[in-house]
Amino acid sequence: MHRTRVKVVEEALDANNTIARANREDFDRHGVTVVNFMSAPGAGKTTLLERVVSDLDGIRVGVLEGDVQGSMDADRLADLHVPVTQLNTDSGFGGECHLDANMVRSALPALPLAQIDLLLIENVGNLVCPAEFSVGEDRRVMVSSVTEGEDKPLKYPLMFRTCDLVLINKIDLLPHLDFDLDRFLYHLDQVHPDVERFLVSARTGEGLGQWRDWLTAVVSPEGALA
Amino acid sequence: MHRTRVKVVEEALDANNTIARANREDFDRHGVTVVNFMSAPGAGKTTLLERVVSDLDGIRVGVLEGDVQGSMDADRLADLHVPVTQLNTDSGFGGECHLDANMVRSALPALPLAQIDLLLIENVGNLVCPAEFSVGEDRRVMVSSVTEGEDKPLKYPLMFRTCDLVLINKIDLLPHLDFDLDRFLYHLDQVHPDVERFLVSARTGEGLGQWRDWLTAVVSPEGALA
Repeated sequence: MHRTRVKVVEEALDANNTIARANREDFDRHGVTVVNFMSAPGAGKTTLLERVVSDLDGIRVGVLEGDVQGSMDADRLADLHVPVTQLNTDSGFGGECHLDANMVRSALPALPLAQIDLLLIENVGNLVCPAEFSVGEDRRVMVSSVTEGEDKPLKYPLMFRTCDLVLINKIDLLPHLDFDLDRFLYHLDQVHPDVERFLVSARTGEGLGQWRDWLTAVVSPEGALA
Repeated sequence: MHRTRVKVVEEALDANNTIARANREDFDRHGVTVVNFMSAPGAGKTTLLERVVSDLDGIRVGVLEGDVQGSMDADRLADLHVPVTQLNTDSGFGGECHLDANMVRSALPALPLAQIDLLLIENVGNLVCPAEFSVGEDRRVMVSSVTEGEDKPLKYPLMFRTCDLVLINKIDLLPHLDFDLDRFLYHLDQVHPDVERFLVSARTGEGLGQWRDWLTAVVSPEGALA
């Protein structure tokens, strides 16, 4: 139906992968582990970052905030005294709906790569396009809020299929929802069998220890912190 | 920063508007009112449609379902015995994150335009790109769930600025959230002063009468139903 368009998308993706590799080399040279953090709007990405960034023992964290417009999330995270860089995508008409490798590359000079061990990139809130663009990350984490319903893995399969960890957030609301957790997990395993997943509540703190330990292990796989 | 890309986007939008006008003429010729229905993933679009489509007195409704993949929402709505057409956007790598005028145009032959008065188009769940593409609609309705937080109008301003009605959904969860409704409304008025807005709960039914009356008035502005 849109065959000519598909070709253009594939070419754009090749260019993206070339730049993502260049980013990867820069991150490696500085010994920085990079996590690309994605979700739908309002799933709780920023709060889940707020709850861990100041509490990762011995790991120096930096944050790159992707938003269509504004710096509300960056301001929240800067309050926690970690270096935060804002990247706005609104130079197009309504703004780009994702980060790509070139946008991240344009932000590299503003990032204190020599002073951090872990870079957390908060992508634009969107379950479609962010999954299509590598930015040179080591790991992909996605947040799925239980308020969004059990069908989301089936409706946005690429996002769920390409991530390394799913944080199932807002579980404090489960008693007040018609959300069938078993059904969600069944759908998740259909698109990404056995992907790692933690049940968390950014609000109550439940499950955040696992999330913190996962990040720590990604930076220091042998558990040997500097 | 991405100046050359902006030019391409503007050209694409011009082509979109040309096709949107052609859609508009086809809708007008058949006397069909068209509502473009948008939100973030999981805000409750399908449930809000389910709750009204079979209860619009004297108005013959059709639904066009936009999804990256699958037909779960179309199947739900078909159960209500309204004609439903599924439009999948997954011909690209990860799928298009929005409907555009050309996609809707490709679906027109499958739509029973001569047999309906109102076409409800459920867009792909996304707060960025769907707002950039007219599909030839008469009205734009967006759903913002209170679980998404008060900051969304400021973070996704084009969506909130270009819609004619905001359905503030899931208000049954307000007692269980740290959501400040006054703050959300203040942000909404900053980007779209005095836009019409209804507080609703698709789950409990609260506020759905207003939503039903609004749709009825859009189809029959003088209240004179056939």
